[in-house]
Formats: sequence, C-alpha cells, structure tokens
Amino acid sequence: MSGSTFGRWFAVTNFGESHGPAIGCVIDGCPPGLALSAEDIQPDLDRRKPGTSRHVTQRQEADRVEILSGVYEGVTTGTPIALLIRNEDQRSKDYGNLLDTFRPGHADYTYWRKYGLRDPRGGGRSSARLTAPMVAAGAVAKKWLRERYGTEVRGCMVQLGDVEIPVDDWSQTAQNPFFAASTSALPMLESAMDQLRKSGDSVGAKLRVEAQNVPAGWGAPLFDKLDAQIAYAMMGINAVKGVEIGDGFGVVTQRGSLHGDEIHPGGFASNHAGGVLGGISSGQDLVVTLAIKPTSSIRLEKSSIDRSGASTTVVTHGRHDPCVGIRATPIAEAMLALVLMDAALQQRAQGADVELPVPAVPGLHL
Amino acid sequence: MSGSTFGRWFAVTNFGESHGPAIGCVIDGCPPGLALSAEDIQPDLDRRKPGTSRHVTQRQEADRVEILSGVYEGVTTGTPIALLIRNEDQRSKDYGNLLDTFRPGHADYTYWRKYGLRDPRGGGRSSARLTAPMVAAGAVAKKWLRERYGTEVRGCMVQLGDVEIPVDDWSQTAQNPFFAASTSALPMLESAMDQLRKSGDSVGAKLRVEAQNVPAGWGAPLFDKLDAQIAYAMMGINAVKGVEIGDGFGVVTQRGSLHGDEIHPGGFASNHAGGVLGGISSGQDLVVTLAIKPTSSIRLEKSSIDRSGASTTVVTHGRHDPCVGIRATPIAEAMLALVLMDAALQQRAQGADVELPVPAVPGLHL
Amino acid sequence: MSGSTFGRWFAVTNFGESHGPAIGCVIDGCPPGLALSAEDIQPDLDRRKPGTSRHVTQRQEADRVEILSGVYEGVTTGTPIALLIRNEDQRSKDYGNLLDTFRPGHADYTYWRKYGLRDPRGGGRSSARLTAPMVAAGAVAKKWLRERYGTEVRGCMVQLGDVEIPVDDWSQTAQNPFFAASTSALPMLESAMDQLRKSGDSVGAKLRVEAQNVPAGWGAPLFDKLDAQIAYAMMGINAVKGVEIGDGFGVVTQRGSLHGDEIHPGGFASNHAGGVLGGISSGQDLVVTLAIKPTSSIRLEKSSIDRSGASTTVVTHGRHDPCVGIRATPIAEAMLALVLMDAALQQRAQGADVELPVPAVPGLHL
Amino acid sequence: MSGSTFGRWFAVTNFGESHGPAIGCVIDGCPPGLALSAEDIQPDLDRRKPGTSRHVTQRQEADRVEILSGVYEGVTTGTPIALLIRNEDQRSKDYGNLLDTFRPGHADYTYWRKYGLRDPRGGGRSSARLTAPMVAAGAVAKKWLRERYGTEVRGCMVQLGDVEIPVDDWSQTAQNPFFAASTSALPMLESAMDQLRKSGDSVGAKLRVEAQNVPAGWGAPLFDKLDAQIAYAMMGINAVKGVEIGDGFGVVTQRGSLHGDEIHPGGFASNHAGGVLGGISSGQDLVVTLAIKPTSSIRLEKSSIDRSGASTTVVTHGRHDPCVGIRATPIAEAMLALVLMDAALQQRAQGADVELPVPAVPGLHL
Repeated sequence: MSGSTFGRWFAVTNFGESHGPAIGCVIDGCPPGLALSAEDIQPDLDRRKPGTSRHVTQRQEADRVEILSGVYEGVTTGTPIALLIRNEDQRSKDYGNLLDTFRPGHADYTYWRKYGLRDPRGGGRSSARLTAPMVAAGAVAKKWLRERYGTEVRGCMVQLGDVEIPVDDWSQTAQNPFFAASTSALPMLESAMDQLRKSGDSVGAKLRVEAQNVPAGWGAPLFDKLDAQIAYAMMGINAVKGVEIGDGFGVVTQRGSLHGDEIHPGGFASNHAGGVLGGISSGQDLVVTLAIKPTSSIRLEKSSIDRSGASTTVVTHGRHDPCVGIRATPIAEAMLALVLMDAALQQRAQGADVELPVPAVPGLHL
Repeated sequence: MSGSTFGRWFAVTNFGESHGPAIGCVIDGCPPGLALSAEDIQPDLDRRKPGTSRHVTQRQEADRVEILSGVYEGVTTGTPIALLIRNEDQRSKDYGNLLDTFRPGHADYTYWRKYGLRDPRGGGRSSARLTAPMVAAGAVAKKWLRERYGTEVRGCMVQLGDVEIPVDDWSQTAQNPFFAASTSALPMLESAMDQLRKSGDSVGAKLRVEAQNVPAGWGAPLFDKLDAQIAYAMMGINAVKGVEIGDGFGVVTQRGSLHGDEIHPGGFASNHAGGVLGGISSGQDLVVTLAIKPTSSIRLEKSSIDRSGASTTVVTHGRHDPCVGIRATPIAEAMLALVLMDAALQQRAQGADVELPVPAVPGLHL
Repeated sequence: MSGSTFGRWFAVTNFGESHGPAIGCVIDGCPPGLALSAEDIQPDLDRRKPGTSRHVTQRQEADRVEILSGVYEGVTTGTPIALLIRNEDQRSKDYGNLLDTFRPGHADYTYWRKYGLRDPRGGGRSSARLTAPMVAAGAVAKKWLRERYGTEVRGCMVQLGDVEIPVDDWSQTAQNPFFAASTSALPMLESAMDQLRKSGDSVGAKLRVEAQNVPAGWGAPLFDKLDAQIAYAMMGINAVKGVEIGDGFGVVTQRGSLHGDEIHPGGFASNHAGGVLGGISSGQDLVVTLAIKPTSSIRLEKSSIDRSGASTTVVTHGRHDPCVGIRATPIAEAMLALVLMDAALQQRAQGADVELPVPAVPGLHL
Repeated sequence: MSGSTFGRWFAVTNFGESHGPAIGCVIDGCPPGLALSAEDIQPDLDRRKPGTSRHVTQRQEADRVEILSGVYEGVTTGTPIALLIRNEDQRSKDYGNLLDTFRPGHADYTYWRKYGLRDPRGGGRSSARLTAPMVAAGAVAKKWLRERYGTEVRGCMVQLGDVEIPVDDWSQTAQNPFFAASTSALPMLESAMDQLRKSGDSVGAKLRVEAQNVPAGWGAPLFDKLDAQIAYAMMGINAVKGVEIGDGFGVVTQRGSLHGDEIHPGGFASNHAGGVLGGISSGQDLVVTLAIKPTSSIRLEKSSIDRSGASTTVVTHGRHDPCVGIRATPIAEAMLALVLMDAALQQRAQGADVELPVPAVPGLHL
C-alpha cells in the first residue's frame, strides 16, 4: 500500500484533494447484514463540516455523502462500500503568490520535495478536508460497533489555548460549537476565540476521545497493539503533534505502586492504563488525549521562500479556522472507531473461539 | 498480517517468548549490497541487554545474535535476513501463584481474554525481551541509512521520575547507565535509583529520540505519515503511554504566529514541527519524545484476582528493572530507524524520480 | 485487506456492482509526473465495452470514465487517482425467479453462502462488469510502463471452442471483433458464433497475452514471483480456469535438454520459459496463456435449486455474451500491465541500485 | 511486503538459502488452542525430503524441524510459531565454473540482474529446498483445518513425461515413490525413470491436488478469489508452469450447457468448476492440476554465458532430481492447505455471522 488505505480488515481507502471534483473513500471489509443508509453517515459529517459557527471557517460545503456501492435493499452486502462527496466551494480565487510559495507550517514544501510537484489549491491532498471521508467511514464503524458490542465512542475538547475545559457533562458536547463537555468554560471560550479572530492569529487545543464497552481482547501484539494503532490513527490527523493513552505523560513521575490498576472480583479499581494492557483492551474505557497545533494559515506575516529559493513573505487571507482543534473532535472519534472496528474483526478471526471459564471483569466507567 | 510484522517494505517479523528456546526476527526487504555481520548488530544489543549496571535487572542474557540467512560473503543479498537469539537464562523458578494470577499493570489478564490461554513464564510474548530482535533489526536499518544518506539516529533520557535531565552533551549517553546526555544530573539519578530499589517501588521516565540528516520527502500521506508511523512504532514499545513530535503537547498553548517554522534561503529558522510537515520529512531533525510508565513488577503488594475470579494479592520478587525506561533508549532508537528505513524505500519506489529544480533547504540542527 | 485491492505498490481498490449507481477504482501509488487524462484511458474501455459487434452482449454502456483525483494540470501528483464509471443501463427488467434461484455456473450460491445475502441484480459484485475499472487502471499502468521502459502489453484470442486461431499478424487484433491476430480464421469464427447464438448455447476460449521489453529483474521471490502474480491476476478474471506461462502444460512431456533456454552473448536461443526464471523476469518476452470457460448464462434449460432448497429450472434470456472470452482480451492485458507496474515499483525500492557490470542479455522476440 | 511472506491472516514468512546455516519460517496468525508438536510436522517433511528412493536426489538432509516459539505446554498460544530447520549437507564441493556461469533454465541470471549479486551455492534462495519450511507450515494448517472443519488435502502425480497415471486408489500414494494413486503405472514409471537417469536428462510431470470437506463461502472477491490464491500459490512453487482449476484448459472446447454444474436438492450433479464459483468455494471438492517443468540441472551439455558475457558451456554433475515433479506433491498439498487456512480466517472475520436458512448443498465427491 502507499499510505492512503487505513486498516487491514476494515480497510478504508481515501481519495481526493481539497479543490478537486470530489473526495471520498472505499471501505473494504465491512461485514454483511448491517442496515446502512446515507442518513446514518450524514450527522457526523455535519458535525465536522465548516460554517457551523462564527468560530470556524466560513467555507461553505454541504458535504453530502452518496453511497455508490456495497449496500443492497438498505443492508451492507459484504462488498466494498464506496462513499462519494462532491466538492462544491472550489472558489477560483486569486491565490496571489501562494502557488509558488511554501507556507510556513504547511505541507507545501514537503509535498513538493516528495513528489517534485504539488496541487497547491487549498492545500490539495494535505488539506484537512480529506478527513471528511474518514468521518463518513467512521460513522459506519460506529454503527456496527454499537449494534454488535454496544461500544460507544465519544470525544470532547479539554483545552483551547490557555483555557482548560472541565469534563463534567458529556451531553453538553452537542450543545456548543467547541464540543465542550461543560457549560462553565463557554464564556471564556467565546471571548478567547473572538479576540483570536481579531488578532489574526491562531491557537492550539487538546482533545479527549473515549470508547466505552470495548470488549477485552482487542488488539494484536506485538506491533498492532491497540494503543499503537490508536497512536498511528491520531497522529495521522492533520495538525496532531502528541498522543496519550490513559495517564499519558503523567506516568513519567508516577510510581508503579500507584500506576498499576488493581483488579477486584467486582472490577478494576482504577484506570491509569486507559483501557489497554500489553496492547490489548482490558474491557475498561479507552481514554485517549491528543494535542493539536495552532492553524498555520494566519493573517500575520511570516517569512518563507518560493520555489526558486528566493525570500518572500506569506500572509494568509480568506476563510480559515482560528483553531483547527474545534472541528477535530468528530474526526478523532471516527479514527478511534475505525481502529476498534479493525481490532474487532481481527479478534473474530484470530482470537480465542472458545468460551472463557469466567466472565470478563467489568471495566470501570470513570 | 497478525501484528508481528513491522514495516511494509523493510518488513521485520518478530517471534519468540521470554522463556522459550529462542527469540528473533526475519527482515524481508533489505536492499542488496549492504556489508553486514553480527558485529554490526551486537553493539546495540549490548546497550539494551540486562545486567549492565546495578540500576537494571540482573537477569543474565548474553543476547548473542546469529545471522541465519540473507548474507553471502559478508554482504546482504536482498533476500530475507533471519536473526536468531537463543534464550539462556530460563530460570525454572517457583512462580508461586503468578501462573494463575493476573498481575496488575501487566498483560496477563488481557492476553488471557484474547487467546483463552497464555504463556505465563516471564510474561511470555508480552515481555520487553521481545524488543531485542527489534534492536537487532534496527541496527541493520541504522547502518543502511548511515551509508546511503548519512542519517544518524540517537536517543537519550530526559527525565526519570521527578529528575529532569538536561541535554547538553550527547557524547555522555555512552558514558553512563541512564543514557543521560549530561553529567550534571548523574548524582541525582544514582541516588534516586538507589532509594527506589530500597523502596521496592518503580518509576516512570521520559525519553527523546532524534534523527539527523533525514532527506526531505519521506513519509506517505494520508495515513502512513512519517509522524503517524513514528507514533505507531513508539506506542508499540512496552510501557510507552505517550508520544510527541516536535513541540508535542506544548503546541496546545502556542499561537500560530510562533509555531509555524519560518523558512529562509539559508534554512529553517526554527523547528517547532520536529522535522515533519504534513506527515512528510522536511529535512530538519526529527525530534520525538515518549513517556514510559513505571515498571509494573514491584515488591509492594497489590490486589488482583486469579483465573477463577477470586481475590488474591501479588508481590513480585526477583529480577526486575525499577525503571524500564532506562533500557528503552536503544529500543526507541531502533524503532525510529525502522520507520525511516521503510519510508526511504517507499520514497525510492513512489516519490519523485526527477531532479528537483533547487537543492533542499538545509535543516536546522538545534 | 479484504480482496478488493489489487497490487501492493500500485494498489488498485475496486468497488461497485453491476446494477448499482456506479463502479470504479482508486489507484494508490502511481508515481508523480505522468501526463494523464481520460483520453488515455477511454480507448481500452471502449475495446472492452459491450455492444461493439453482434457477437457480444448488446447491453448498452458508454463506460465513460471520470478522473476524480490525483491529477493536477494534466499530470499525476503521486496521490490517489480515483476513477469513476456511472452505470447507465440498469434495466429494471423482470428477473423472473432469478432473484431466488442459484444459477448453475454462477456465483449466486457461493456469494449467498459467504455473506448470507446477495445483490442478485445482474450478478451484483460477481459480474464481469467489475473488470471495467481494472481495464481503466491498466491503461494508466500501460502508459507509465511504455514511457519509462518501452514495455508493451498485447493480447489476442488463440482459440474459440474448436476453432484454433493462428498468431501471424498482430495488427489484425484491432480489425476484428475477436481480437484475432490473423485473418485466416475469421470466416470460421463468424460462422461458429452465428451458429452458437442460434443454438442458445455458449463456448469457451483460449487467450494469449504478452509483454515485450520487460526489463530483467522484475518479480520478488519467494512468493511474489512475477509468474505467481500473473497467475493470481489472470485466475482472478471472471471465468478463467487455467493459466500457463511459456510452454505451460507442454512442459509435462518435455525433456530438460530441450526446455532450458540456452544463452548466447547475442541473446537467448529460445523462450520455453516464457520470460520468467525463478520468478524473475529474464528480459525475454512474457508469454501467458489462459483458458476461459463458456458463459454460464445460456438460453438452454438447466436444473438448480432456490433459496428454500427446492428444485427449479433456470433459463437465461436477455443479453449475454455467447463467449465471454471475446471481450476478455483487453481485461487480460490490463491485469498483466498491473502486475508489471507493481513489479517495476518493487524493483525500484528493493532491487540493485548499482550499475551492473555488463548490459542485459537481449531477449528473444519470437 | 517483499515477497517472502505468504498469506494475509495465516501469514508465513520464509527465510534461508540452500547452503546457508538454516532455513525456516515464522507463522503469524495461527489461532490459539491447537495441540501442536514437531511430531505433527515431521511426517510431511519426511515425505518431501531427498534421498528417499533411487528416483530422487541422493542429497542427505534429515530436515528435522524445531519449534522455537508460539507453543506452550503443547498448545498454540496465538503468537508467532517459528520453525527452524538446520542445513546439514552443505558439501563444499568444487563448483567448477558454476559460480560465474548462468545455468540455462535456472534463476542464476535473473537473480543477478535483480540484485546485482547472488548466492550461487546450490541456487541459494532460488533452491527448491526453500519449499521445506512451507511443507512444515502447511502441516500446521492441515491439522487445524482437519480438526475444525474436517477438511482433508491430498495430492498425487497424474503424469510423468509421457506416462499417464490413473487415479484409482488414493491409498497407494503412500506406498510408492511417485505419489501415484494407482499401482498399474508403477512398472512403466520405474523403467522410465531408470532410462532417464542413464540418459542424464530430465522430464516434466503433472500433479493433482484436492481438498475435501471445504465449507462453502471461502474466498474473497474480487482479487483474493480462492482460485486466484490457489493459482498464486501453485505458480509460486519452483518449476511450475501451469495451473488449472476443475476442468482447466478443457473448458476451451466445452459448451455452457455441459460446463455449468447443475444443482439438485441432494447436491451438485457434477464438478466441472472444481469446487469454486465466482472465486468462492461451493462446498464441492477443490480440484487443482499443475504442470512442472523438467529439472534444469542435467548432465547433458548446454550453452550459456558467464558474468563477463562470454560464451561457455554448462554440464551439471552431482545429485539432482531427474524429475522435480516427484517430490512436489507434498509441497503442492501444503500450499493448498495454506490458501485454505487463510481463507478460513478471512471468512471468520468478514463473512456471514448469521445462521443461513438452509443447510449447504452437499458437495460431490468424484
């Protein structure tokens, strides 16, 4: 493979560029018998799409998904599911010197070094727009996981710049534009974003994604550990610079006497591990944290060079997210669902196919 | 694949258990013409092996590597390179109740849930001992990368528990048991470890690994981004709970005006990105940080259950590392080298095969 | 993967069903810099499409290909190339009892056993219509191979039922509906087909595909031998039941003194091997032969069962090829091109990157 | 991957050269809970090993297999199973000019073109000796398939040169050195081989391999069709030049009215398809035929060139099989078992997981 297919069993092949005629993906490996229609996919696409609040890019994209194959009479057939999203807002704007300039923080320079040429329109292949097909594929995985195992994936923002956001009410994530699981921080978030837009600058963010009711036994040692696959999935999301499982970097100063989660007949006593031991799910909640860098496209001038190697400056006008982290929550959820889907199928094929002598230890829902 | 093969082009298939007759790996995809002998591999194995100082496990393993195939007259032939390491110290000790007990923080419970049975001797397949073949494979990758591209991979410990370790002299990493790139912290590290051993407890650590002289253009979007593959490789190392690229979680509070590395004709002005833009190497130093949890095997009693689901307690005697992070530095170096090797071959096959109009921008060596 | 992706480096993921909204594929791994437009692809699609003569199905499909991604300003960018073909002739005909009946010789029964359900419209996923996207992908591979290595792929029919077709003038393959490389057999082919249509029966065929100017050194031992990959590709084409390389089954009665192709400084003296030795191309012409079974859909009544297991009979009316082998020539060419493309990229990554001491031995063009 | 791993789920990675210290393989993906010891593997290795009769090479190799990992207390653990076979008979003979000469019919020239160098000792990596680890891995697959599904794989020789061998008593295959399923042809086979050895020449052969009690539903469209994977596996065996499924090349002259196997409530009425429809197993016997070329190493002089490109002649003395087809039967059985094992795991993960409304149609045992 050449990097555009995610997953081994539930394999999602992604295609498209920001300003091409269309983007989409092909899912190969979805088990047959899952009731599926565009209506199952569209809600997650709508959560990710631009223009939903003043705090995100005002680019207009309906992001309507079309199912081209793999579904017959409303049910998956086990054959590839092709999902197509037509690009609409391909504004033929004046790119100024951007076509020849390597924008700081962007992939302009590296794509050009890799391929010897690049599609500069809106970042081409490197645009975060290419996460939309993954959100669509993730919605299929979410539905299958929910129906087969009761597994639920959810995410929220826990920090935006200097504003820390408590996690005290998950129901709130659907009620505000920040995917904040709390109402207390909303005023600070609103004002912080308003100042940010005025300044023309951008800021980073921290997100948390979780999965509940993950059966114990998912994940394949040595290298396809569940946490390794999660790290691969999350670090592959545009702008992500750090990934943690469970206590993450907090373990550096921990003692083993604290970190090791004790087990009682009634269940685990804590979840420092974040739901994974030895790369295999323990039945506890999966807890993942990720760091997202500030948007590279800002209105403030930065120095760079053009393709001839000469000095130039870059100022990005137009429609950009002051904090790409805001729209990343549904993306991170989708990627986590895709990892779990793959692990579930791997376990069906190669895990124990005998009944275990005692039931699983109940996980701890923190 | 089922999780025991790392890499697509330079594919390393790992086998073995802690107390089985042997461990090893098969490297498929090493280009022909590389001068290679066991002497090229042994030094890295010796850096990782136990018993080298009082601060690590006293388990005795020579970890002598034997090359079984793929080399003829001292040169790689392009065919699979099989590396074998015989296990020597398979102490048939009294495991007490450990065979039936799920040790907190270990993979005992999860392996048993996944497979319905497990090899409990020394952790079986989940033992960190299985990183030895990867260190051996990584030594092959390091040599090829150095000879073809001048790429150098190095690592050091930057924090042990509460003791932060400055990075001021890389030459020191070979002079102390902690892989510390400084002499200033050594007294604190020695005393911290001595107290730790007395206490019977364990502690976490933070490591940094870097690669210099990485050509621009390595890494395959969308999913096989270089940083995504690094995250996958690092999180797959035993006990790792967090991975950062460049500024990592520091980006959460950064502004875009700071984070985006400016480019001048003479080179990049900073390296907040850590050598990767859009998942593709920029030619700057790759900078990776990882968090390693405290050793789960400690002499302090913890609660758990046995296979019947009944309550029990666990106290681990015997020979364990009070800080597994100490011996993890050569492992992290090896995994980074394996990721780069794979990316180098991918670029040879699928990258630009034309001369680019201007030379690469020189990277910044911080 | 789950079977819908062909190739490791030049990876083609196929999707769609015979009567769904669209069929297509995503090519991941095409090197950048190849000039490409729909006009480069359409001619091969037109060679395969139905309705081109009275000897093939009269189903009407324009099979117009749309390039959705991977091409910018007329040149491939190195990112995935998505190719879309909308289905037009989805005649909502009366399927009679076909929806519940397992047609003899078809995949109806086996798909139903595999998936527990199936899309019965026109064979759904098992329809030969799904070869169209491969012909499109093959056209991309053909163009790249021709431009980089001068490699040419060609095919012809060498037998239709009892009518053997000599290979004496390759230029004729474009001049007749049978892809016959000769004019001498045309009258017999015409009359044989006319009688066949009257009878309501179908017949098998034998095809030959060749590749010229294949560089020596392509193919990866042990399992991805070039001939093994060719066999995989050809046997995967609908209705193929046999594959031969070089002398094929003729070797059973041969002596080694005859079979082993002697080598002279001026070149090989013969090509019994068909261009492959030890699974690696020798620089001689690749010669492949395949056997294609008679069309399973015929107007003559056959016995079968329905989904309840009860006896029934099947008579297939409507538009079917009396000899599916006729339209299979461009398909076989495309699959051979895809195998070669993959092998070429593999060799770029993992073969010798040094100049060999003497030039390759010239191959023999028989 | 680079060609040395066979299978996706039951992935067998092969290593070694003919005259290196050892050969072997690593099986990744074997389900846990299979009782396994070297005694389960050795019998098939003994069927393949040299020196068992005067009609095969007299090279002496005990081919004793050692299980290095993946088995604990006599049962597979689900982790990689490493199998090691030490090379014993590495006769340091006088290779004469063979080290510099490209032997006609061998891989000498093509390996050298691919890699720029080669291990010439006994053919190095291209030696049929590398099939031994596959026979060992196949024995593991055979045992699992037999225990889980009652699937049985068997093979026999059906033609040696001009001598056709009837298939009338499968029990005889273990009673004669030719794997002939009949006693009637033995005298002719004996005399044919004796004459052949005197002449210093070699001859080709045709083999049949079958699998019984293969559940319907195995095989993954579009490309991983069961027959496509079988063709890939068989053509990958040294010296194989042709593969047929069911009636194979016989279909060229067949009519559809004959070929399509009718289905009755009691079962299929015939098995022209050879057990596969649309690339998916039908529950009927899998029937595969393969053509094996005459041994390239003969005592008769042939012309070739050396590495300088100069003319030379080759005469192969020493210990070679006058008909490599004789020892190929257990190899073909093993490869078929490996294909089925992979397909079984694929179906467990991605096939129907619901009970089908009616039982499978019984297959036809011809």
